[in-house]
Amino acid sequence: MMDRAPPAFPVLPTLAPGTVWLVGAGPGDPGLLSLLAAKALNEADVVVYDALVSAPILALARPGARLEFAGKRGGRPSPSQRDISARLIELGRSGLRVLRLKGGDPCVFGRGAEEALALAAAGIPFRLVPGITAAQGALAYAGVPMTHRDSNAAVTLLTGHAQGGGLPDGLDWAALAKGAPVLILYMALGHLAAITERLIAGGRAPETPALMISHATLPNQRIVETTLAGLATDAARHAVEAPCLIALGETIRLRAALDWTAPAAQREAAANALLAALRAEAG
Amino acid sequence: MMDRAPPAFPVLPTLAPGTVWLVGAGPGDPGLLSLLAAKALNEADVVVYDALVSAPILALARPGARLEFAGKRGGRPSPSQRDISARLIELGRSGLRVLRLKGGDPCVFGRGAEEALALAAAGIPFRLVPGITAAQGALAYAGVPMTHRDSNAAVTLLTGHAQGGGLPDGLDWAALAKGAPVLILYMALGHLAAITERLIAGGRAPETPALMISHATLPNQRIVETTLAGLATDAARHAVEAPCLIALGETIRLRAALDWTAPAAQREAAANALLAALRAEAG
Repeated sequence: MMDRAPPAFPVLPTLAPGTVWLVGAGPGDPGLLSLLAAKALNEADVVVYDALVSAPILALARPGARLEFAGKRGGRPSPSQRDISARLIELGRSGLRVLRLKGGDPCVFGRGAEEALALAAAGIPFRLVPGITAAQGALAYAGVPMTHRDSNAAVTLLTGHAQGGGLPDGLDWAALAKGAPVLILYMALGHLAAITERLIAGGRAPETPALMISHATLPNQRIVETTLAGLATDAARHAVEAPCLIALGETIRLRAALDWTAPAAQREAAANALLAALRAEAG
Repeated sequence: MMDRAPPAFPVLPTLAPGTVWLVGAGPGDPGLLSLLAAKALNEADVVVYDALVSAPILALARPGARLEFAGKRGGRPSPSQRDISARLIELGRSGLRVLRLKGGDPCVFGRGAEEALALAAAGIPFRLVPGITAAQGALAYAGVPMTHRDSNAAVTLLTGHAQGGGLPDGLDWAALAKGAPVLILYMALGHLAAITERLIAGGRAPETPALMISHATLPNQRIVETTLAGLATDAARHAVEAPCLIALGETIRLRAALDWTAPAAQREAAANALLAALRAEAG
Protein backbone atom coordinates (compact mmCIF):
# COMPACT_ATOMS: atom_id res chain seq x y z
CA MET A 1 0.00 0.00 0.00
CA MET A 2 1.30 3.41 -0.91
CA ASP A 3 0.77 5.91 1.85
CA ARG A 4 2.42 8.78 0.00
CA ALA A 5 1.76 10.08 -3.45
CA PRO A 6 4.86 10.03 -5.67
CA PRO A 7 6.41 13.47 -6.24
CA ALA A 8 4.27 15.27 -8.77
CA PHE A 9 7.11 17.27 -10.26
CA PRO A 10 9.58 15.53 -12.55
CA VAL A 11 13.22 15.41 -11.49
CA LEU A 12 15.01 17.68 -13.91
CA PRO A 13 18.76 17.99 -14.46
CA THR A 14 20.61 20.79 -12.71
CA LEU A 15 22.68 23.51 -14.38
CA ALA A 16 26.06 22.67 -12.84
CA PRO A 17 28.91 25.12 -12.14
CA GLY A 18 31.26 25.48 -15.11
CA THR A 19 28.53 24.37 -17.53
CA VAL A 20 26.79 26.32 -20.30
CA TRP A 21 23.24 25.54 -21.28
CA LEU A 22 22.21 26.77 -24.76
CA VAL A 23 18.49 27.23 -24.28
CA GLY A 24 15.58 28.31 -26.44
CA ALA A 25 13.25 30.79 -24.77
CA GLY A 26 10.48 30.22 -27.31
CA PRO A 27 8.80 32.92 -29.39
CA GLY A 28 8.01 35.37 -26.59
CA ASP A 29 4.94 34.37 -24.54
CA PRO A 30 6.42 33.21 -21.21
CA GLY A 31 3.78 30.45 -21.16
CA LEU A 32 5.69 28.81 -24.00
CA LEU A 33 8.91 28.57 -21.99
CA SER A 34 10.01 25.02 -21.22
CA LEU A 35 10.35 23.71 -17.67
CA LEU A 36 14.10 23.25 -18.32
CA ALA A 37 14.43 26.87 -19.43
CA ALA A 38 12.53 28.06 -16.35
CA LYS A 39 14.75 25.91 -14.13
CA ALA A 40 17.91 27.26 -15.78
CA LEU A 41 16.68 30.84 -15.24
CA ASN A 42 16.26 29.96 -11.58
CA GLU A 43 19.74 28.45 -11.26
CA ALA A 44 22.06 30.45 -13.51
CA ASP A 45 24.71 32.80 -12.13
CA VAL A 46 24.78 34.62 -15.44
CA VAL A 47 22.27 34.83 -18.30
CA VAL A 48 23.65 35.83 -21.72
CA TYR A 49 20.57 36.78 -23.74
CA ASP A 50 19.57 37.97 -27.19
CA ALA A 51 17.28 40.80 -28.27
CA LEU A 52 14.46 38.34 -29.00
CA VAL A 53 14.16 37.15 -25.39
CA SER A 54 11.11 38.93 -23.96
CA ALA A 55 11.10 40.98 -20.75
CA PRO A 56 8.63 38.76 -18.83
CA ILE A 57 10.96 35.81 -19.48
CA LEU A 58 14.07 37.64 -18.25
CA ALA A 59 12.07 38.59 -15.16
CA LEU A 60 12.18 34.90 -14.20
CA ALA A 61 15.96 35.03 -13.65
CA ARG A 62 17.10 34.37 -10.08
CA PRO A 63 17.46 37.62 -8.12
CA GLY A 64 21.16 38.40 -8.10
CA ALA A 65 21.87 36.68 -11.42
CA ARG A 66 23.91 38.78 -13.83
CA LEU A 67 22.09 39.54 -17.09
CA GLU A 68 24.36 40.15 -20.08
CA PHE A 69 22.88 41.43 -23.33
CA ALA A 70 24.47 39.97 -26.47
CA GLY A 71 22.28 41.05 -29.32
CA LYS A 72 21.68 43.81 -31.81
CA ARG A 73 19.96 46.91 -30.47
CA GLY A 74 19.23 50.15 -32.26
CA GLY A 75 22.15 51.32 -34.35
CA ARG A 76 24.76 50.06 -31.86
CA PRO A 77 27.23 47.48 -33.19
CA SER A 78 26.38 44.06 -31.79
CA PRO A 79 29.04 41.73 -30.43
CA SER A 80 30.37 39.40 -33.11
CA GLN A 81 29.57 35.70 -32.96
CA ARG A 82 33.25 35.10 -32.19
CA ASP A 83 33.08 37.51 -29.21
CA ILE A 84 29.94 35.84 -27.85
CA SER A 85 31.49 32.37 -28.11
CA ALA A 86 34.68 33.62 -26.39
CA ARG A 87 32.59 35.15 -23.60
CA LEU A 88 30.64 31.90 -23.05
CA ILE A 89 33.94 29.98 -22.83
CA GLU A 90 35.34 32.51 -20.36
CA LEU A 91 32.22 32.35 -18.17
CA GLY A 92 32.21 28.55 -18.24
CA ARG A 93 35.93 28.36 -17.38
CA SER A 94 35.40 30.63 -14.39
CA GLY A 95 33.12 28.00 -12.90
CA LEU A 96 29.83 29.89 -13.21
CA ARG A 97 26.50 28.35 -14.05
CA VAL A 98 25.89 29.90 -17.47
CA LEU A 99 22.57 30.19 -19.28
CA ARG A 100 22.83 31.22 -22.93
CA LEU A 101 19.25 32.18 -23.70
CA LYS A 102 18.04 32.74 -27.25
CA GLY A 103 14.66 33.57 -28.72
CA GLY A 104 12.92 30.59 -30.32
CA ASP A 105 15.05 27.44 -30.64
CA PRO A 106 18.85 27.85 -30.60
CA CYS A 107 19.17 25.20 -33.31
CA VAL A 108 16.57 26.65 -35.71
CA PHE A 109 18.18 29.68 -37.38
CA GLY A 110 19.67 30.58 -34.00
CA ARG A 111 23.40 29.91 -34.47
CA GLY A 112 23.29 27.55 -31.52
CA ALA A 113 25.54 25.07 -33.33
CA GLU A 114 28.27 27.67 -33.79
CA GLU A 115 28.37 28.45 -30.07
CA ALA A 116 28.16 24.78 -29.15
CA LEU A 117 31.07 24.00 -31.47
CA ALA A 118 33.23 26.66 -29.80
CA LEU A 119 32.31 25.32 -26.34
CA ALA A 120 33.05 21.75 -27.41
CA ALA A 121 36.45 22.73 -28.81
CA ALA A 122 37.28 24.49 -25.52
CA GLY A 123 36.27 21.46 -23.47
CA ILE A 124 33.39 23.28 -21.71
CA PRO A 125 30.46 21.02 -20.86
CA PHE A 126 27.21 22.18 -22.42
CA ARG A 127 23.64 21.10 -23.10
CA LEU A 128 21.28 21.93 -25.98
CA VAL A 129 17.73 22.70 -24.83
CA PRO A 130 15.32 23.19 -27.71
CA GLY A 131 12.59 25.83 -27.57
CA ILE A 132 9.35 26.42 -29.43
CA THR A 133 10.44 28.11 -32.62
CA ALA A 134 8.85 31.27 -34.02
CA ALA A 135 7.04 29.36 -36.77
CA GLN A 136 5.15 27.25 -34.24
CA GLY A 137 4.25 30.15 -31.99
CA ALA A 138 3.35 32.59 -34.73
CA LEU A 139 1.08 30.17 -36.60
CA ALA A 140 -0.63 28.71 -33.51
CA TYR A 141 -1.40 32.21 -32.21
CA ALA A 142 -2.70 33.19 -35.66
CA GLY A 143 -5.01 30.15 -35.78
CA VAL A 144 -3.17 28.40 -38.62
CA PRO A 145 -1.75 24.85 -38.43
CA MET A 146 1.78 24.25 -39.74
CA THR A 147 0.51 21.02 -41.27
CA HIS A 148 -2.98 19.79 -42.11
CA ARG A 149 -3.73 16.30 -43.26
CA ASP A 150 -5.94 17.41 -46.13
CA SER A 151 -3.42 19.77 -47.64
CA ASN A 152 0.22 19.48 -46.62
CA ALA A 153 2.34 16.48 -45.74
CA ALA A 154 5.44 18.69 -45.65
CA VAL A 155 6.49 22.11 -44.43
CA THR A 156 9.73 23.98 -45.11
CA LEU A 157 11.30 26.56 -42.81
CA LEU A 158 13.87 28.82 -44.40
CA THR A 159 15.77 31.96 -43.62
CA GLY A 160 15.68 34.94 -45.94
CA HIS A 161 18.83 36.42 -44.45
CA ALA A 162 22.36 35.07 -44.87
CA GLN A 163 25.47 35.84 -42.84
CA GLY A 164 26.49 38.72 -45.10
CA GLY A 165 23.01 40.27 -45.15
CA GLY A 166 21.94 39.08 -48.60
CA LEU A 167 19.71 36.22 -49.65
CA PRO A 168 21.19 32.84 -48.67
CA ASP A 169 23.37 31.27 -51.35
CA GLY A 170 22.84 27.87 -52.75
CA LEU A 171 19.12 27.54 -52.21
CA ASP A 172 17.24 26.01 -55.13
CA TRP A 173 14.23 28.34 -55.16
CA ALA A 174 12.49 26.46 -57.96
CA ALA A 175 12.70 23.26 -55.91
CA LEU A 176 11.51 25.07 -52.78
CA ALA A 177 8.59 26.53 -54.74
CA LYS A 178 7.48 23.05 -55.86
CA GLY A 179 8.39 21.17 -52.66
CA ALA A 180 6.53 21.60 -49.38
CA PRO A 181 3.05 23.13 -49.82
CA VAL A 182 3.65 25.38 -46.78
CA LEU A 183 6.72 27.64 -46.66
CA ILE A 184 7.71 29.58 -43.57
CA LEU A 185 10.22 32.39 -43.92
CA TYR A 186 12.33 33.71 -41.06
CA MET A 187 14.02 37.13 -41.24
CA ALA A 188 12.79 37.69 -44.78
CA LEU A 189 11.50 41.28 -44.59
CA GLY A 190 14.64 42.66 -46.24
CA HIS A 191 14.35 40.59 -49.41
CA LEU A 192 10.63 40.16 -50.00
CA ALA A 193 10.60 41.26 -53.64
CA ALA A 194 13.48 38.94 -54.58
CA ILE A 195 12.00 35.97 -52.69
CA THR A 196 8.53 36.50 -54.19
CA GLU A 197 9.98 36.72 -57.69
CA ARG A 198 11.98 33.50 -57.26
CA LEU A 199 9.05 31.54 -55.82
CA ILE A 200 6.63 32.69 -58.54
CA ALA A 201 9.23 31.97 -61.23
CA GLY A 202 9.57 28.52 -59.66
CA GLY A 203 5.87 27.83 -60.12
CA ARG A 204 4.26 28.92 -56.87
CA ALA A 205 0.96 30.68 -57.59
CA PRO A 206 1.05 34.47 -57.05
CA GLU A 207 -2.32 34.26 -55.27
CA THR A 208 -1.03 31.78 -52.65
CA PRO A 209 -2.35 33.02 -49.27
CA ALA A 210 0.32 34.65 -47.10
CA LEU A 211 0.59 35.94 -43.54
CA MET A 212 3.11 38.34 -42.06
CA ILE A 213 3.20 37.96 -38.27
CA SER A 214 5.22 40.48 -36.27
CA HIS A 215 6.06 40.11 -32.55
CA ALA A 216 4.48 36.66 -32.53
CA THR A 217 2.75 35.46 -29.33
CA LEU A 218 3.36 38.81 -27.58
CA PRO A 219 0.71 41.40 -26.62
CA ASN A 220 1.86 43.55 -29.57
CA GLN A 221 1.51 40.70 -32.09
CA ARG A 222 0.30 42.06 -35.42
CA ILE A 223 -0.85 40.07 -38.43
CA VAL A 224 -1.17 41.18 -42.04
CA GLU A 225 -3.00 38.84 -44.42
CA THR A 226 -1.99 39.07 -48.06
CA THR A 227 -0.82 36.87 -50.95
CA LEU A 228 2.58 35.80 -52.20
CA ALA A 229 2.45 38.47 -54.90
CA GLY A 230 1.32 41.09 -52.41
CA LEU A 231 4.01 40.54 -49.75
CA ALA A 232 6.42 43.36 -50.59
CA THR A 233 3.72 45.95 -51.26
CA ASP A 234 1.73 45.09 -48.14
CA ALA A 235 4.83 45.00 -45.93
CA ALA A 236 5.53 48.60 -46.97
CA ARG A 237 1.89 49.73 -46.86
CA HIS A 238 1.34 48.37 -43.34
CA ALA A 239 4.85 49.22 -42.09
CA VAL A 240 5.35 45.60 -41.00
CA GLU A 241 7.98 45.39 -38.26
CA ALA A 242 10.71 42.88 -37.49
CA PRO A 243 10.86 40.37 -35.97
CA CYS A 244 8.43 39.03 -38.55
CA LEU A 245 7.53 35.50 -39.55
CA ILE A 246 6.05 34.96 -43.01
CA ALA A 247 3.91 31.95 -43.90
CA LEU A 248 2.77 30.89 -47.38
CA GLY A 249 0.28 28.17 -48.25
CA GLU A 250 -3.29 27.02 -48.53
CA THR A 251 -3.60 26.11 -44.82
CA ILE A 252 -3.77 29.83 -44.14
CA ARG A 253 -7.34 29.70 -45.43
CA LEU A 254 -8.22 27.79 -42.22
CA ARG A 255 -7.59 30.91 -40.19
CA ALA A 256 -11.17 32.19 -40.42
CA ALA A 257 -12.32 28.99 -38.70
CA LEU A 258 -9.41 28.42 -36.31
CA ASP A 259 -8.43 31.83 -34.98
CA TRP A 260 -9.19 31.07 -31.34
CA THR A 261 -8.56 34.69 -30.37
CA ALA A 262 -11.55 35.85 -32.47
CA PRO A 263 -15.19 35.82 -31.26
CA ALA A 264 -16.58 32.25 -31.15
CA ALA A 265 -19.65 33.05 -33.27
CA GLN A 266 -17.50 34.32 -36.15
CA ARG A 267 -15.31 31.22 -35.99
CA GLU A 268 -18.32 28.91 -35.80
CA ALA A 269 -19.85 30.18 -39.04
CA ALA A 270 -16.55 29.88 -40.91
CA ALA A 271 -15.87 26.39 -39.53
CA ASN A 272 -19.31 25.13 -40.51
CA ALA A 273 -18.97 26.55 -44.00
CA LEU A 274 -15.60 24.84 -44.35
CA LEU A 275 -16.87 21.48 -43.10
CA ALA A 276 -19.87 21.68 -45.44
CA ALA A 277 -17.52 22.34 -48.36
CA LEU A 278 -15.35 19.36 -47.37
CA ARG A 279 -18.41 17.09 -47.15
CA ALA A 280 -19.61 18.26 -50.55
CA GLU A 281 -16.16 17.61 -52.02
CA ALA A 282 -16.06 14.11 -50.50
CA GLY A 283 -19.31 13.41 -52.33
CA MET B 1 10.57 53.53 -4.35
CA MET B 2 9.64 49.90 -4.80
CA ASP B 3 9.48 48.06 -1.52
CA ARG B 4 8.33 44.79 -3.03
CA ALA B 5 9.80 42.83 -5.89
CA PRO B 6 7.34 42.29 -8.74
CA PRO B 7 5.95 38.76 -8.93
CA ALA B 8 8.62 36.54 -10.43
CA PHE B 9 6.20 34.18 -12.12
CA PRO B 10 4.40 35.35 -15.24
CA VAL B 11 0.64 35.57 -15.13
CA LEU B 12 -0.58 32.81 -17.42
CA PRO B 13 -4.10 32.31 -18.77
CA THR B 14 -6.39 29.87 -17.00
CA LEU B 15 -8.06 26.83 -18.53
CA ALA B 16 -11.68 27.88 -18.07
CA PRO B 17 -14.67 25.54 -17.59
CA GLY B 18 -16.25 24.53 -20.90
CA THR B 19 -13.01 25.19 -22.76
CA VAL B 20 -10.70 22.78 -24.58
CA TRP B 21 -6.98 23.43 -24.83
CA LEU B 22 -5.19 21.55 -27.62
CA VAL B 23 -1.71 21.28 -26.17
CA GLY B 24 1.62 19.86 -27.31
CA ALA B 25 3.41 17.84 -24.64
CA GLY B 26 6.72 17.95 -26.51
CA PRO B 27 8.79 14.93 -27.52
CA GLY B 28 8.82 13.10 -24.17
CA ASP B 29 11.32 14.59 -21.71
CA PRO B 30 9.12 16.36 -19.13
CA GLY B 31 11.73 19.13 -19.02
CA LEU B 32 10.59 20.12 -22.51
CA LEU B 33 7.00 20.68 -21.43
CA SER B 34 5.83 24.29 -21.66
CA LEU B 35 4.67 26.28 -18.65
CA LEU B 36 1.21 26.51 -20.25
CA ALA B 37 1.07 22.73 -20.66
CA ALA B 38 2.14 22.23 -17.04
CA LYS B 39 -0.50 24.72 -15.91
CA ALA B 40 -3.20 22.99 -17.97
CA LEU B 41 -2.22 19.63 -16.44
CA ASN B 42 -2.66 21.22 -13.03
CA GLU B 43 -6.09 22.69 -13.86
CA ALA B 44 -7.83 20.22 -16.16
CA ASP B 45 -10.80 18.14 -15.02
CA VAL B 46 -10.13 15.69 -17.82
CA VAL B 47 -7.01 14.96 -19.88
CA VAL B 48 -7.55 13.26 -23.25
CA TYR B 49 -4.10 12.01 -24.24
CA ASP B 50 -2.31 10.16 -27.03
CA ALA B 51 0.09 7.23 -26.93
CA LEU B 52 3.07 9.57 -27.44
CA VAL B 53 2.50 11.46 -24.19
CA SER B 54 5.08 10.09 -21.73
CA ALA B 55 4.25 8.72 -18.26
CA PRO B 56 6.24 11.35 -16.30
CA ILE B 57 4.22 14.04 -18.07
CA LEU B 58 0.86 12.43 -17.30
CA ALA B 59 2.03 12.17 -13.68
CA LEU B 60 1.78 15.98 -13.54
CA ALA B 61 -2.01 15.86 -13.91
CA ARG B 62 -3.94 17.20 -10.94
CA PRO B 63 -4.84 14.41 -8.50
CA GLY B 64 -8.46 13.57 -9.22
CA ALA B 65 -8.31 14.56 -12.87
CA ARG B 66 -9.76 11.97 -15.24
CA LEU B 67 -7.23 10.61 -17.74
CA GLU B 68 -8.74 9.36 -21.01
CA PHE B 69 -6.55 7.50 -23.48
CA ALA B 70 -7.31 8.25 -27.13
CA GLY B 71 -4.50 6.63 -29.08
CA LYS B 72 -3.43 3.42 -30.72
CA ARG B 73 -2.13 0.74 -28.39
CA GLY B 74 -1.07 -2.78 -29.27
CA GLY B 75 -3.44 -4.42 -31.72
CA ARG B 76 -6.54 -2.75 -30.27
CA PRO B 77 -8.54 -0.57 -32.63
CA SER B 78 -7.99 3.09 -31.80
CA PRO B 79 -10.82 5.58 -31.64
CA SER B 80 -11.40 7.32 -34.97
CA GLN B 81 -10.57 10.97 -35.38
CA ARG B 82 -14.30 11.62 -35.65
CA ASP B 83 -14.91 9.86 -32.30
CA ILE B 84 -12.16 11.86 -30.58
CA SER B 85 -13.51 15.14 -31.90
CA ALA B 86 -17.04 14.20 -30.80
CA ARG B 87 -15.74 13.32 -27.34
CA LEU B 88 -13.92 16.66 -27.00
CA ILE B 89 -17.10 18.50 -27.98
CA GLU B 90 -19.13 16.49 -25.45
CA LEU B 91 -16.63 17.16 -22.65
CA GLY B 92 -16.49 20.87 -23.48
CA ARG B 93 -20.31 21.14 -23.61
CA SER B 94 -20.57 19.51 -20.19
CA GLY B 95 -18.65 22.47 -18.73
CA LEU B 96 -15.44 20.64 -17.85
CA ARG B 97 -11.95 22.08 -18.18
CA VAL B 98 -10.59 19.87 -20.97
CA LEU B 99 -6.95 19.30 -21.82
CA ARG B 100 -6.37 17.55 -25.14
CA LEU B 101 -2.70 16.55 -24.80
CA LYS B 102 -0.70 15.30 -27.78
CA GLY B 103 2.91 14.29 -28.19
CA GLY B 104 5.07 16.93 -29.88
CA ASP B 105 3.16 19.89 -31.33
CA PRO B 106 -0.55 19.41 -32.13
CA CYS B 107 -0.15 21.44 -35.32
CA VAL B 108 2.92 19.61 -36.67
CA PHE B 109 1.69 16.25 -38.03
CA GLY B 110 -0.59 16.03 -34.99
CA ARG B 111 -4.07 16.49 -36.49
CA GLY B 112 -4.61 19.40 -34.14
CA ALA B 113 -6.31 21.40 -36.88
CA GLU B 114 -8.90 18.68 -37.46
CA GLU B 115 -9.92 18.68 -33.81
CA ALA B 116 -9.85 22.46 -33.63
CA LEU B 117 -12.10 22.68 -36.68
CA ALA B 118 -14.65 20.36 -35.08
CA LEU B 119 -14.58 22.39 -31.85
CA ALA B 120 -14.93 25.65 -33.76
CA ALA B 121 -17.92 24.32 -35.71
CA ALA B 122 -19.57 23.25 -32.45
CA GLY B 123 -18.99 26.65 -30.86
CA ILE B 124 -16.70 25.29 -28.12
CA PRO B 125 -13.99 27.76 -27.05
CA PHE B 126 -10.49 26.39 -27.53
CA ARG B 127 -6.85 27.40 -27.54
CA LEU B 128 -3.88 26.07 -29.52
CA VAL B 129 -0.74 25.64 -27.42
CA PRO B 130 2.31 24.63 -29.47
CA GLY B 131 4.84 22.15 -28.14
CA ILE B 132 8.41 21.29 -29.01
CA THR B 133 8.08 18.96 -31.96
CA ALA B 134 9.88 15.61 -32.26
CA ALA B 135 12.37 16.96 -34.82
CA GLN B 136 13.63 19.60 -32.40
CA GLY B 137 13.91 17.23 -29.46
CA ALA B 138 15.38 14.31 -31.35
CA LEU B 139 18.07 16.37 -33.06
CA ALA B 140 19.04 18.46 -30.02
CA TYR B 141 19.38 15.31 -27.89
CA ALA B 142 21.44 13.69 -30.64
CA GLY B 143 23.78 16.70 -30.81
CA VAL B 144 22.72 17.80 -34.31
CA PRO B 145 21.39 21.27 -35.19
CA MET B 146 18.30 21.53 -37.40
CA THR B 147 19.99 24.39 -39.20
CA HIS B 148 23.60 25.51 -39.42
CA ARG B 149 24.71 28.72 -41.05
CA ASP B 150 27.52 27.08 -42.99
CA SER B 151 25.37 24.42 -44.56
CA ASN B 152 21.61 24.84 -44.54
CA ALA B 153 19.40 27.90 -44.81
CA ALA B 154 16.31 25.67 -45.03
CA VAL B 155 14.91 22.54 -43.43
CA THR B 156 11.88 20.49 -44.49
CA LEU B 157 9.73 18.40 -42.16
CA LEU B 158 7.58 15.79 -43.84
CA THR B 159 5.46 12.83 -42.90
CA GLY B 160 6.04 9.44 -44.48
CA HIS B 161 2.61 8.20 -43.54
CA ALA B 162 -0.68 9.33 -45.06
CA GLN B 163 -4.21 8.93 -43.75
CA GLY B 164 -4.75 5.60 -45.53
CA GLY B 165 -1.38 4.18 -44.43
CA GLY B 166 0.52 4.67 -47.69
CA LEU B 167 2.98 7.34 -48.72
CA PRO B 168 1.39 10.81 -48.84
CA ASP B 169 -0.04 11.73 -52.23
CA GLY B 170 0.89 14.79 -54.12
CA LEU B 171 4.39 15.35 -52.77
CA ASP B 172 6.94 16.30 -55.41
CA TRP B 173 9.81 14.10 -54.22
CA ALA B 174 12.23 15.41 -56.84
CA ALA B 175 11.63 18.96 -55.60
CA LEU B 176 11.97 17.84 -51.97
CA ALA B 177 15.24 16.09 -52.83
CA LYS B 178 16.66 19.30 -54.33
CA GLY B 179 15.06 21.75 -51.89
CA ALA B 180 16.07 22.05 -48.23
CA PRO B 181 19.52 20.55 -47.51
CA VAL B 182 18.15 18.94 -44.32
CA LEU B 183 15.09 16.68 -44.49
CA ILE B 184 13.33 15.37 -41.41
CA LEU B 185 10.90 12.49 -41.79
CA TYR B 186 8.14 11.73 -39.31
CA MET B 187 6.48 8.30 -39.19
CA ALA B 188 8.50 7.06 -42.16
CA LEU B 189 9.61 3.61 -40.94
CA GLY B 190 6.94 1.84 -42.98
CA HIS B 191 8.02 3.24 -46.33
CA LEU B 192 11.79 3.64 -46.09
CA ALA B 193 12.66 1.83 -49.31
CA ALA B 194 10.16 3.83 -51.35
CA ILE B 195 11.21 7.16 -49.82
CA THR B 196 14.92 6.43 -50.29
CA GLU B 197 14.35 5.47 -53.92
CA ARG B 198 12.39 8.67 -54.64
CA LEU B 199 14.93 10.95 -52.98
CA ILE B 200 17.90 9.33 -54.75
CA ALA B 201 16.03 9.43 -58.08
CA GLY B 202 15.41 13.12 -57.36
CA GLY B 203 19.14 13.79 -57.03
CA ARG B 204 19.90 13.42 -53.33
CA ALA B 205 23.24 11.63 -52.87
CA PRO B 206 22.92 8.03 -51.63
CA GLU B 207 25.77 8.66 -49.14
CA THR B 208 23.93 11.59 -47.48
CA PRO B 209 24.37 11.10 -43.71
CA ALA B 210 21.22 9.88 -41.96
CA LEU B 211 20.07 9.33 -38.39
CA MET B 212 17.21 7.19 -37.11
CA ILE B 213 16.21 8.34 -33.60
CA SER B 214 13.71 6.22 -31.68
CA HIS B 215 12.03 7.31 -28.42
CA ALA B 216 13.63 10.74 -28.73
CA THR B 217 14.56 12.59 -25.50
CA LEU B 218 13.46 9.65 -23.31
CA PRO B 219 15.74 7.38 -21.25
CA ASN B 220 15.28 4.66 -23.88
CA GLN B 221 16.29 6.96 -26.77
CA ARG B 222 18.23 4.97 -29.36
CA ILE B 223 20.12 6.34 -32.36
CA VAL B 224 21.28 4.53 -35.48
CA GLU B 225 23.69 6.39 -37.77
CA THR B 226 23.58 5.42 -41.43
CA THR B 227 23.20 6.95 -44.90
CA LEU B 228 20.23 7.66 -47.13
CA ALA B 229 20.95 4.50 -49.12
CA GLY B 230 21.37 2.47 -45.93
CA LEU B 231 18.14 3.47 -44.18
CA ALA B 232 15.94 0.49 -44.99
CA THR B 233 18.66 -2.11 -44.44
CA ASP B 234 19.84 -0.60 -41.18
CA ALA B 235 16.32 -0.14 -39.85
CA ALA B 236 15.79 -3.89 -40.29
CA ARG B 237 19.27 -4.90 -39.06
CA HIS B 238 18.99 -2.84 -35.87
CA ALA B 239 15.27 -3.49 -35.36
CA VAL B 240 14.60 0.25 -35.19
CA GLU B 241 11.40 0.94 -33.26
CA ALA B 242 8.61 3.50 -33.67
CA PRO B 243 8.20 6.28 -32.77
CA CYS B 244 11.19 7.12 -34.92
CA LEU B 245 12.38 10.38 -36.36
CA ILE B 246 14.68 10.25 -39.40
CA ALA B 247 17.04 13.07 -40.33
CA LEU B 248 19.01 13.44 -43.57
CA GLY B 249 21.70 15.98 -44.35
CA GLU B 250 25.27 17.14 -43.99
CA THR B 251 24.70 18.81 -40.58
CA ILE B 252 24.59 15.28 -39.13
CA ARG B 253 28.39 15.24 -39.50
CA LEU B 254 28.51 17.79 -36.66
CA ARG B 255 27.33 15.12 -34.24
CA ALA B 256 30.83 13.91 -33.33
CA ALA B 257 31.60 17.42 -32.06
CA LEU B 258 28.21 18.38 -30.62
CA ASP B 259 26.85 15.29 -28.90
CA TRP B 260 26.75 16.78 -25.39
CA THR B 261 25.79 13.41 -23.91
CA ALA B 262 29.19 11.92 -24.97
CA PRO B 263 32.43 12.29 -22.96
CA ALA B 264 33.83 15.83 -23.23
CA ALA B 265 37.32 14.70 -24.34
CA GLN B 266 35.89 12.84 -27.33
CA ARG B 267 33.80 15.86 -28.32
CA GLU B 268 36.74 18.25 -27.87
CA ALA B 269 38.97 16.38 -30.34
CA ALA B 270 36.22 16.21 -32.95
CA ALA B 271 35.31 19.89 -32.51
CA ASN B 272 38.93 21.02 -32.87
CA ALA B 273 39.40 18.92 -35.98
CA LEU B 274 36.25 20.43 -37.47
CA LEU B 275 37.26 24.02 -36.65
CA ALA B 276 40.74 23.42 -38.11
CA ALA B 277 39.16 22.13 -41.31
CA LEU B 278 36.89 25.20 -41.50
CA ARG B 279 39.86 27.55 -41.00
CA ALA B 280 41.83 25.73 -43.70
CA GLU B 281 38.84 26.01 -46.05
CA ALA B 282 38.49 29.73 -45.36
CA GLY B 283 42.12 30.10 -46.41
